[in-house]
Amino acid sequence: MKKLSLLLLFTFLWVSCDQKQKKIINKKGLSSEEKIDSTKIKTLFNSALTQSKSYEWLRDLTQNIGGRLSGSPETQKAVEWGKKVMKEVGLDSVWLQPVMVPHWVRGEKEIANYTSNGIKKNVPICALGFSVATPKAGILAEVIEVKSLDEARALGNKMKGKIIFFNRSFDNTLINTFKAYGGCVDQRVRGAAVCGEFGAKGVIVRSMTNSVDDYPHTGIMSYGNLPKEKYIPAAAISSRAANVLSDDLKLNPNLKFHFKQSCKTLPDAPSFNVVGEIKGTETPENIFVVGGHLDSWDLGEGAHDDGTGVVQSLEVAYLFKKNNIKPKNTLRVVFFMNEENGTRGAKKYAELAKLNKENHIGGLESDAGGHTPRGFSIDANSVNTKLLQSWKKLLSPYGLHDLDKGGSGADISPLRGENVTLVGYRPDSQRYFDYHHTSRDTFDKVNKRELELGSASMASIIYLMDKYLYSNTMVKP
Amino acid sequence: MKKLSLLLLFTFLWVSCDQKQKKIINKKGLSSEEKIDSTKIKTLFNSALTQSKSYEWLRDLTQNIGGRLSGSPETQKAVEWGKKVMKEVGLDSVWLQPVMVPHWVRGEKEIANYTSNGIKKNVPICALGFSVATPKAGILAEVIEVKSLDEARALGNKMKGKIIFFNRSFDNTLINTFKAYGGCVDQRVRGAAVCGEFGAKGVIVRSMTNSVDDYPHTGIMSYGNLPKEKYIPAAAISSRAANVLSDDLKLNPNLKFHFKQSCKTLPDAPSFNVVGEIKGTETPENIFVVGGHLDSWDLGEGAHDDGTGVVQSLEVAYLFKKNNIKPKNTLRVVFFMNEENGTRGAKKYAELAKLNKENHIGGLESDAGGHTPRGFSIDANSVNTKLLQSWKKLLSPYGLHDLDKGGSGADISPLRGENVTLVGYRPDSQRYFDYHHTSRDTFDKVNKRELELGSASMASIIYLMDKYLYSNTMVKP
Repeated sequence: MKKLSLLLLFTFLWVSCDQKQKKIINKKGLSSEEKIDSTKIKTLFNSALTQSKSYEWLRDLTQNIGGRLSGSPETQKAVEWGKKVMKEVGLDSVWLQPVMVPHWVRGEKEIANYTSNGIKKNVPICALGFSVATPKAGILAEVIEVKSLDEARALGNKMKGKIIFFNRSFDNTLINTFKAYGGCVDQRVRGAAVCGEFGAKGVIVRSMTNSVDDYPHTGIMSYGNLPKEKYIPAAAISSRAANVLSDDLKLNPNLKFHFKQSCKTLPDAPSFNVVGEIKGTETPENIFVVGGHLDSWDLGEGAHDDGTGVVQSLEVAYLFKKNNIKPKNTLRVVFFMNEENGTRGAKKYAELAKLNKENHIGGLESDAGGHTPRGFSIDANSVNTKLLQSWKKLLSPYGLHDLDKGGSGADISPLRGENVTLVGYRPDSQRYFDYHHTSRDTFDKVNKRELELGSASMASIIYLMDKYLYSNTMVKP
Repeated sequence: MKKLSLLLLFTFLWVSCDQKQKKIINKKGLSSEEKIDSTKIKTLFNSALTQSKSYEWLRDLTQNIGGRLSGSPETQKAVEWGKKVMKEVGLDSVWLQPVMVPHWVRGEKEIANYTSNGIKKNVPICALGFSVATPKAGILAEVIEVKSLDEARALGNKMKGKIIFFNRSFDNTLINTFKAYGGCVDQRVRGAAVCGEFGAKGVIVRSMTNSVDDYPHTGIMSYGNLPKEKYIPAAAISSRAANVLSDDLKLNPNLKFHFKQSCKTLPDAPSFNVVGEIKGTETPENIFVVGGHLDSWDLGEGAHDDGTGVVQSLEVAYLFKKNNIKPKNTLRVVFFMNEENGTRGAKKYAELAKLNKENHIGGLESDAGGHTPRGFSIDANSVNTKLLQSWKKLLSPYGLHDLDKGGSGADISPLRGENVTLVGYRPDSQRYFDYHHTSRDTFDKVNKRELELGSASMASIIYLMDKYLYSNTMVKP
């Protein structure tokens, strides 16, 4: 027995040394194993760029179904659609996971206007998700402009009866526009909770965008722990209107702003995550999940957010099948429901995974738009992070240079764990907040090649993760 | 004297070693000098993303002047405009370089159609630059489809009286779409010369694009050494029409294709390069040139090709002035005339540089569209190439990862020389051939941030080149 152990140890050391040597010898090029991977990745890209289905799937989802707010008839259509396309791809099994979702409805088109120096100005406005309605006649009140929640809090009771106008704009010097979003979105999410406390009549928020334009951006807000009687209506106005209003307030601080919205929250509605999988050939009990969210805001068609993520996720499985790549671990595609206002689908998925004692070893989410690929954000332990970063030379020929540590995505992060490797697909972010949560998030804003390159990028990292992440005993979780 | 020499040598060696040491010590981070550069680059980006003029310049050039084909009244307006904006930026001097340019005009809107199985199909078509007209009634002839010049040549006299249809499509598996363009454009440029030789009646070429759509792409063609009496009309048809025609030819090989165009080449016309400069503070006799081309094709507004290059080039100087960066060498901005059909402006610029014994040490051209930055292509000797590549860590935070050897651009390459460092700005190429040379190349296709990031990228590499390329004695050309 000892002899065997020694032999094994020796073999192990010898193999280790040999591999190290190989790496050193081929420092400039690729090792023989990396050459195999490089060829496989090239195959995935070639296939995506010539035989892709994602663009036509996206056309169908966005143009024939359209915006898909949780609880709406469109989400039900999208669920049926999702099941159908998964079956068409020929996944080993496809099923629905029932989940109750919030059901907020916008009601009639919102109206906003004010008069400054005798000139009436109509303001592009939209209610924020979960906001209450205004009274039927709307709200008419003076406006106090602030740049932050703290500035609002400092107003205290001065807010009473006023409309609070949150007008901190994106920091456009941040190259990653998601960081700029992160630096502003507290105004949208928590503005009403802060101001409702002090008896403000309503809040209006500058739209979350880098650009100055006429499109209001909706998005989720929350009343936090505020008692219901203190709920106040919350809406977003376009960035250009925010600039104009700010200027008008300087000249005419007592102008009265009027807005009207009839949105409401109905009882929770039944809905589904759509799930499909290719069974693993070696360790089917280990699961990689790849997904995007099927729901979207209602103003546009939910193209970049997140139709692209949905079709790219399915295309990963499609590219595997098309190229006869059989994953060693189970590859599961999930179209999550209700990412936009509740992430109930994500929570349900993680809850069931735990209940069923499923072993998720990794996940990949695409929910940052369908623009040209830039890389991945890695949420993993340090060993696996380094492993993923070592694939840079295989991925960089495809413009995938960014392999930094960071978050993955709202839908897969409930699966987090010390030995779970989560990855977020990171396309170029420059155009994303031109469309995000607006009527402009439509199919025509997505470029076919950029979408396909994204599918191939995702398929490539899943291929590598499936091959190395678990089976490589050195980094076995 | 010997002592002094030895002292100098010793000092040199000591400084060299010290610098090497510094580099080693700070291997993971930045040296103190690199920290200064990093801060300066950040300033340039911040400035471009918040105080840019390029987007409004581009709006003016593309929407108030529009398409600018050499010899047209629009180019004259563009020259006046160029002089005006250069002066507004406050360059030390601004002047015009007279140059005679080809003057080809499209004439009336082209027409094309054919009937297959009793169904008449209209075909989106446009004449190619320098093509002759068809007879007034147009051409009507049977079609032979080929995929290459060689395949056409092999037809020999079978071409007589026929329309030759070049239908080799882009290789969509190439990640860099310019490579796909390079692999197809010979059909457009030389098709008529090859087929005219054998008495073909005309050539039609599949449009140069990755996508399948309804937009014909114009572009230059040449009759080479063909005698004038053998010139035949040449036109591009949309990629979708090319697919349909190809299918129809399979079913109906004897269908007759009809097209009509009235384009012609007029006598050369007077025009100008627009030139402006900031005088260098230390070695003003050394010149860096940064430029794009002011002319464009006539079908669209010349936005991505090359309005963006023009405004970005001027913005380099604007950002220098705005941030009080005084170049050591002279920084010259050039709006080249006639890149699209003749590069006469480029030749004139290089000719005058030689005549005036100007010492160009480097150049940067932006003529690959205004999309999100990816890097630069370097045409330089190996020492300077390595120097530029060593700036990767300074540039990569801005998405500038590509620093490969390659061409620079059609307008600055006449300045090539062993000690001249030429650089081409390389934005993302995925969307470029959706618009290139079509009616879709309009202002609305340009994203403000992407344009500005390009200006800042260009300003950053010019800043580094100005600082290190010549003054650093180790790489003195």
